[in-house]
Amino acid sequence: MHRRSFLTQSLSLPFLSALPTLQAAAVTPPLVLGAAWYPEQWPESRWDEDLKLMEQAGLRMVRVAEFAWSTLEPREGQFELDWLEQAVEMAAKRNLVTVIGTPTAAPPAWLTQKYPETLLTEANGRKAEHGNRAHFSFTSERYRQFCARIAGVMAKRFGGNQNVVGWQIDNEYGRTSNDDFTRMQFQAFLKDRYKTLDALNEHWTTAYWSEAYTDWSQIPLGPSGNPGLFLEWKHFISETFRTYQHVQVEAIRAHAPKRQFITSNYMGWYDSFDHYILAEELDMVSWDNYVGRGHLDPLRNGIVHDLTRGLKRKNFWLIETQPGFVNWQEVNNALDKGEARAMAWHAVGHGADCISYWQWRSALNGQEQYHGTLVGADGTPVPMYNEAAQLGREFAQVGGALGGTEPVSEVAMLHSYDSRWAVNFQRHNRNFDPVALLGSYYRPLRRMAQQMDVIHPMAPLNGYKLVVAPALNVLPEPMAKHMEEYVRQGGHLVLGPRSGMKDEFNSLWPMRQPGPLVDAVGARVEQWYALDEDVPVSGPWGTGKATMWAEQLKTRTAGVEVLMKYGASNGWLDDQPAVVSRALGKGRITYIAALLDDALMAKAAEWMLRLSGVKPALGPVPDAVEVCRRTGGGKDVYIVINHSKAEQRVVLPRAMRRLLAGGAAVSLVNLPPRGVEVLSV
Amino acid sequence: MHRRSFLTQSLSLPFLSALPTLQAAAVTPPLVLGAAWYPEQWPESRWDEDLKLMEQAGLRMVRVAEFAWSTLEPREGQFELDWLEQAVEMAAKRNLVTVIGTPTAAPPAWLTQKYPETLLTEANGRKAEHGNRAHFSFTSERYRQFCARIAGVMAKRFGGNQNVVGWQIDNEYGRTSNDDFTRMQFQAFLKDRYKTLDALNEHWTTAYWSEAYTDWSQIPLGPSGNPGLFLEWKHFISETFRTYQHVQVEAIRAHAPKRQFITSNYMGWYDSFDHYILAEELDMVSWDNYVGRGHLDPLRNGIVHDLTRGLKRKNFWLIETQPGFVNWQEVNNALDKGEARAMAWHAVGHGADCISYWQWRSALNGQEQYHGTLVGADGTPVPMYNEAAQLGREFAQVGGALGGTEPVSEVAMLHSYDSRWAVNFQRHNRNFDPVALLGSYYRPLRRMAQQMDVIHPMAPLNGYKLVVAPALNVLPEPMAKHMEEYVRQGGHLVLGPRSGMKDEFNSLWPMRQPGPLVDAVGARVEQWYALDEDVPVSGPWGTGKATMWAEQLKTRTAGVEVLMKYGASNGWLDDQPAVVSRALGKGRITYIAALLDDALMAKAAEWMLRLSGVKPALGPVPDAVEVCRRTGGGKDVYIVINHSKAEQRVVLPRAMRRLLAGGAAVSLVNLPPRGVEVLSV
Amino acid sequence: MHRRSFLTQSLSLPFLSALPTLQAAAVTPPLVLGAAWYPEQWPESRWDEDLKLMEQAGLRMVRVAEFAWSTLEPREGQFELDWLEQAVEMAAKRNLVTVIGTPTAAPPAWLTQKYPETLLTEANGRKAEHGNRAHFSFTSERYRQFCARIAGVMAKRFGGNQNVVGWQIDNEYGRTSNDDFTRMQFQAFLKDRYKTLDALNEHWTTAYWSEAYTDWSQIPLGPSGNPGLFLEWKHFISETFRTYQHVQVEAIRAHAPKRQFITSNYMGWYDSFDHYILAEELDMVSWDNYVGRGHLDPLRNGIVHDLTRGLKRKNFWLIETQPGFVNWQEVNNALDKGEARAMAWHAVGHGADCISYWQWRSALNGQEQYHGTLVGADGTPVPMYNEAAQLGREFAQVGGALGGTEPVSEVAMLHSYDSRWAVNFQRHNRNFDPVALLGSYYRPLRRMAQQMDVIHPMAPLNGYKLVVAPALNVLPEPMAKHMEEYVRQGGHLVLGPRSGMKDEFNSLWPMRQPGPLVDAVGARVEQWYALDEDVPVSGPWGTGKATMWAEQLKTRTAGVEVLMKYGASNGWLDDQPAVVSRALGKGRITYIAALLDDALMAKAAEWMLRLSGVKPALGPVPDAVEVCRRTGGGKDVYIVINHSKAEQRVVLPRAMRRLLAGGAAVSLVNLPPRGVEVLSV
Repeated sequence: MHRRSFLTQSLSLPFLSALPTLQAAAVTPPLVLGAAWYPEQWPESRWDEDLKLMEQAGLRMVRVAEFAWSTLEPREGQFELDWLEQAVEMAAKRNLVTVIGTPTAAPPAWLTQKYPETLLTEANGRKAEHGNRAHFSFTSERYRQFCARIAGVMAKRFGGNQNVVGWQIDNEYGRTSNDDFTRMQFQAFLKDRYKTLDALNEHWTTAYWSEAYTDWSQIPLGPSGNPGLFLEWKHFISETFRTYQHVQVEAIRAHAPKRQFITSNYMGWYDSFDHYILAEELDMVSWDNYVGRGHLDPLRNGIVHDLTRGLKRKNFWLIETQPGFVNWQEVNNALDKGEARAMAWHAVGHGADCISYWQWRSALNGQEQYHGTLVGADGTPVPMYNEAAQLGREFAQVGGALGGTEPVSEVAMLHSYDSRWAVNFQRHNRNFDPVALLGSYYRPLRRMAQQMDVIHPMAPLNGYKLVVAPALNVLPEPMAKHMEEYVRQGGHLVLGPRSGMKDEFNSLWPMRQPGPLVDAVGARVEQWYALDEDVPVSGPWGTGKATMWAEQLKTRTAGVEVLMKYGASNGWLDDQPAVVSRALGKGRITYIAALLDDALMAKAAEWMLRLSGVKPALGPVPDAVEVCRRTGGGKDVYIVINHSKAEQRVVLPRAMRRLLAGGAAVSLVNLPPRGVEVLSV
Repeated sequence: MHRRSFLTQSLSLPFLSALPTLQAAAVTPPLVLGAAWYPEQWPESRWDEDLKLMEQAGLRMVRVAEFAWSTLEPREGQFELDWLEQAVEMAAKRNLVTVIGTPTAAPPAWLTQKYPETLLTEANGRKAEHGNRAHFSFTSERYRQFCARIAGVMAKRFGGNQNVVGWQIDNEYGRTSNDDFTRMQFQAFLKDRYKTLDALNEHWTTAYWSEAYTDWSQIPLGPSGNPGLFLEWKHFISETFRTYQHVQVEAIRAHAPKRQFITSNYMGWYDSFDHYILAEELDMVSWDNYVGRGHLDPLRNGIVHDLTRGLKRKNFWLIETQPGFVNWQEVNNALDKGEARAMAWHAVGHGADCISYWQWRSALNGQEQYHGTLVGADGTPVPMYNEAAQLGREFAQVGGALGGTEPVSEVAMLHSYDSRWAVNFQRHNRNFDPVALLGSYYRPLRRMAQQMDVIHPMAPLNGYKLVVAPALNVLPEPMAKHMEEYVRQGGHLVLGPRSGMKDEFNSLWPMRQPGPLVDAVGARVEQWYALDEDVPVSGPWGTGKATMWAEQLKTRTAGVEVLMKYGASNGWLDDQPAVVSRALGKGRITYIAALLDDALMAKAAEWMLRLSGVKPALGPVPDAVEVCRRTGGGKDVYIVINHSKAEQRVVLPRAMRRLLAGGAAVSLVNLPPRGVEVLSV
Repeated sequence: MHRRSFLTQSLSLPFLSALPTLQAAAVTPPLVLGAAWYPEQWPESRWDEDLKLMEQAGLRMVRVAEFAWSTLEPREGQFELDWLEQAVEMAAKRNLVTVIGTPTAAPPAWLTQKYPETLLTEANGRKAEHGNRAHFSFTSERYRQFCARIAGVMAKRFGGNQNVVGWQIDNEYGRTSNDDFTRMQFQAFLKDRYKTLDALNEHWTTAYWSEAYTDWSQIPLGPSGNPGLFLEWKHFISETFRTYQHVQVEAIRAHAPKRQFITSNYMGWYDSFDHYILAEELDMVSWDNYVGRGHLDPLRNGIVHDLTRGLKRKNFWLIETQPGFVNWQEVNNALDKGEARAMAWHAVGHGADCISYWQWRSALNGQEQYHGTLVGADGTPVPMYNEAAQLGREFAQVGGALGGTEPVSEVAMLHSYDSRWAVNFQRHNRNFDPVALLGSYYRPLRRMAQQMDVIHPMAPLNGYKLVVAPALNVLPEPMAKHMEEYVRQGGHLVLGPRSGMKDEFNSLWPMRQPGPLVDAVGARVEQWYALDEDVPVSGPWGTGKATMWAEQLKTRTAGVEVLMKYGASNGWLDDQPAVVSRALGKGRITYIAALLDDALMAKAAEWMLRLSGVKPALGPVPDAVEVCRRTGGGKDVYIVINHSKAEQRVVLPRAMRRLLAGGAAVSLVNLPPRGVEVLSV
């Protein structure tokens, strides 16, 4: 029911399509190092000095123009693109390909001043003001017309440019607006979706608190309280950003050949909209990966890479990452020396084909003066420059070996925005964080299996030996069928607590949890309990604790195995089933009814992997060492990273070639602190 | 000066009064178990199944319609009450009497859309929106007309219905509005009260900060800063809700015979308005008792029962309580198995004649999907159902023995909203919580005396051996006279810190504390001190600490006994009187000038009770055991509750009958964890 | 570029200037005790009783009328000043001189009701309401006209009054407004300052995020994000308050002879505006010194006295201070007995010539009922009265000895509002508090040297042996020149971390830190690091830790001494310089690149003082004892205060006279707890 086009006025773009060119297209290396560069902030006389320093550090890509609207269109309808073409040419001379961003995250002052309807309205009812970014209204039709025009003008000029290899649309969108026009569009969206108010009233149970609507115009802007309305509000936001993005895709593709990719930079767990829907139209997803405060936690960061890779189930670009430190945390500490390099290889291991630093150099004034860079205020290298240069050399060295490869996994974790939204809207236990729940499964499974995909529940599952679905609170019928089919065909499906509680309207499934999978599991949840105190759990996995959440299960058919039980606690849970498992068809389905402590979760992961026949990609390694495998085109490459500050030794299962050390074959590697090896079979 | 009628447009209600009926009126049991039921959320075909399950659990009452406005009046002036009559009849067939709520806490969308002046304005100036509840403006005359009409239409239909035993007006009111119309009404209220601006300016000392008003229209909506204005703002809110309630009382009483009670459900300590004023017009008070997070603390909860009982100085109904857990806390843990039963008996012990669960079954969608219920989303019992059923059996068993009884006490605690508001508005020490102060007296006194009334300071006092007034910061002259008279007639009055600091205008009494009681006490407060560090206190009660607050007393007449003194601390308090006591007339008056630590407070309570000749109702019991006594009509019943998870033994002062065990006489009872005994002499 | 007059409509004031008088002018004692007195809150019949009690306590000054506008001008244009003249006369009869406050901090209700444009608009867009104070708009021209008129009327009446010794303008101003008129004035201010948008766009680097302005009217009200805009917003506020104050200075001076001083009461570290700019036009600065919660910390409080004294580099008045306690803290504890006296002498030691308590007596109603006073609600003394009376006697005793003296110092600390604003706007480490940074230098230096000036960086420096500039983040070229000149002439300048990072537009200096002083220091900062973990530092000062912030220095010329180095930490800082020092011209310049822990900072201070030849004013004293020296007119007086609760012994370097003990000569003094000695050579 997504993907409606009511917002997408198919814009007639009267620009000519790109003319053929005789130049040879610039080649993007298989593994590319880059940086965000803002030539508009500096005199042209300075540009080559910057580009030369980039080239010397092994950078091969610059990302430009994403906030340059006021320079590209200094007055309405007056376009100035020569400077940008000049920048692209100068970059090309220094062996740098260019990715162009559309500047729509930063409307010029003349635009919002003349057309104030393009400004967003805050939750408190106030109009946003010029002076920052992303202050446009996501529903404004006027704004979309301006976006289409500037994107079209740029694409017309650069669609044929051989040194421009791709396009980035806007920047980190997601801010919504609370104005009357948005409200009308939301109401139109609902009308399109439900057809009748009777249907809407029924699905939202509006008899409750006299919420019943007798006119579409009565419906408030979400989130206002009703879970049904809230979920549709998120669907509306997703659909609106889809069409917002689509307008620019259309404007660019009118002039840009297929060899120029179109991407947009997303933000990991950020959940303002459903990223699966928006990723569909892009050629490639990219994301902005910032540690912020503290240091790299490879499992915490790795799951986000895998989530992002799962949006399109293919490799991605790290189009922004921090050269040392950021400027928007409470304490903006720097990564340790060597840590940024390890972090870059970690990203490559999870499927990144590009590492691009934000930013090359700081503007002398403006909101991000304090952000980390590769050169200082005077334009000469800061200490971090050398670490980037090392990466530049290494990427050149092993890029060929990694070209065409990607991570593969026999284990998948299912993830859906609807379920995260639903639980976050009604946590019931404020500590119940659906992202943390996903992490509690990811950490032991990734560590033991050295592999993991994170995908949409409707993605093909048949290639996987094990599929975990720790947090599918919203479980529509077709999704349940798809998952049950996977089990019947021989897969092992593991469900977590709160699974299958809601239908697609955020309404309670009347059959209790796990809703449409009750029959498949052969058990149901009698009652859920938010926990203020831990509850003991024991069984074949050992003894441990349920924390925050525990459900009282009851088996309903023969052959359902009760694996774990609760111990004495609140009286209700005492001696009740906590985990059940059942063979079904050629496969197996398991329901874990509580949040388990880390040690018990590790036992559970061990059990799942053993039962499903999943083995570690490389073999046993020390805890501080991460293994990432990329394969494809007959290649089989292992990236092995020591994330600790102590030396680590890894015994290899067989002789392998050390690609960063000239290809020498070894059967054992010693990794210095934050050390990296790229090994090939 | 309360009870003005300027807001009460005496509405002419053109409805006929209820016709006489030949049916026999249904009888409400003396002790009744019930639940909130929302038939409008379900198909009629489902109703009898629900009612049958209720009957089987021993429920004898359903509470309906409180949020059903959009079903009762789906379009302006179009009333549909047949379904409700059908529900009442079906309930009656299952032996359930009905309490009908007026649905005015949840205006339909058509109403607020067509008449936006009925919506409240938030403190930030924004109009509330449809989609939640209690979003009406408490001053709107238009809204009151709609309320009167729907209440009248319902009363006309059900006033003669023998199965309808009572009415509940609205639900948990108290939200205020910050619109211009409210401001005008507040100004009119002040004009009515003060007559002249000179009087107002003088009582509020508006020479201060040039606040002086030269026109009534200049007066801002409170709370704006001046303590005088703030207190009147609270008086205005109380008066406005009184008339808001009155409009519905009048509309109902036009059709409802006296055998149908009128109540409204209040919320314990909630202090948006003065509950004594609103309770006056009701036949009975009821309240919504939720533990929320954590577990039952019987002394913390008992004081609220006693406060509620004190509103009308008679028994009350627990018209909402949690079947296990709620959904609006940060962690919504469940009560332990058996705890809800103990909590129900605890309420009965403090004067509740009805325990009604909220709610029977959750709507499939809507804001409270996660709240505890007695049946699940599929309409079959959840585990809590059985515990309710046990209560149903027990209430049937001993209802007769408790009918016509109520708690009685020789000890009273005085409580006033003016004083709580005044102190909370200017705490001076942020930790000085007037409710906590009341609790610090209540806890040891209730535990030792096994009895306590909490009443308004102007209530009759002559029946009490001991009256404590820990927190009467606002002490008008007539109140002081009333209390002094009690002392002179032989009572023992104990005052706490900050007593008698203010007059009824929240202005400082110029004679210092305790204001009009300075002469009676024979001492005054030289200076108050908010404490950042504890101060030692010692004397006949032993040695302990003053915390948060200490006043330096000075005796002014002979015969005043200095009981306790401060030790070395800030220099000012060193060796100064902390507690003084004086025989006056036939009685005694004591002033405790500091907040004392718990151990010292226990010694003080012991001293008060001993001096006043108060003995425990039943006699010594273990700490974990609570004793409640109800008497009346020659009956004398003790409810004895073990609130701990360990078995407790209680030796009785004489042989008593175990009413829950068939009436066997015993002189000792062993209470299992969370066990309850109902004993009769 | 400050001091523009665009806001100052030079008002034509048609009032006659003050007529000559034959009365002898009342003499203000050299050391004066006073109190804020509000006769308008009380009947005239009470006044003499209050004044008599003041006289008995040795008070010699009353401060009146600061909030009395509604009494002075009860209706527009109707002035009533007779009562005030009567109050001044009655005070004179009790030997009290008068300081008159203009009442402009508290506009009457009739004024803001009739001219709503005089009300400020909050950050959330709402108009302020009558009922509190300081709710006027600081840019309103209408409001300034009313201020000029009331000030002029008062000055005309009291300019010739011999008992009126001075004027206080308004009260604690600083609240800003967010209305459209203010925005227009801000834009006009910017146009006046930058002349062209090109200049503004360049200095603010508005190419960043497409912020570029093409019309002055597009510029938002700061603070909106851009550091350049933010800093100008603060400059605009300062300039606007300067002209706001100027309007009243002008109106008063038209009638008031020079012997009547003009002051305004400021608030220590409060940084809404640049106090140096506003202090310029005043004859004397005064400030409101409240400990609030807790107790006097003499070093924390002393730096504020020194800061305030530095505004005009002359003595000041403590025009408000707490008689025991305040009413606006979370816990309003009282100062210990004797502590207020010690605090008064501490202020005198730092240059206060007047201690004036706020307030004499509390209004019976109004926002500050709970504030400390000298008499109670009944008008008789509270315990604090006696302590004030002791001060009254002492001031009379030693006033002559202190008349004409002031603190002098060989050590100065530089302080600028631009730098504090810039760092607070972008702390990068949320714990990096520029005021705390100043304190970390002040504490050890003041304790060891027993002297300190805190002055503007452009103040004359040549008299100082040591100048520390711990926090000059914004360092314009002329300031750098001025400081370098000081060094070349033989001074020792010590810079702290983040020095010289920005120019006057809050733009990064392209030469990196310390900007225009890079060459003078002979080193620069390669990279700054916000620290999440401490970093070891060691060298000749010993071993310690850098906390919160550390910069990696690199020397650039020969002869730069690396004093301290970082130890192993984040890899980047390991073994890098942390402190460098260089002889330059006849002097020395030192750069400390990190925040050091207290112990190491003490070592640094010792090094600085030793190297600069600064010795303690009196000689060694116990830690709990503070020494303050005041000299002038051949006098040399030491105020020695024991701030602890234990007795302290001080051996004097030679025989001195105990002025509070009749002038006996001693060579050793024993100070009781909170004891004070005033010693003269």
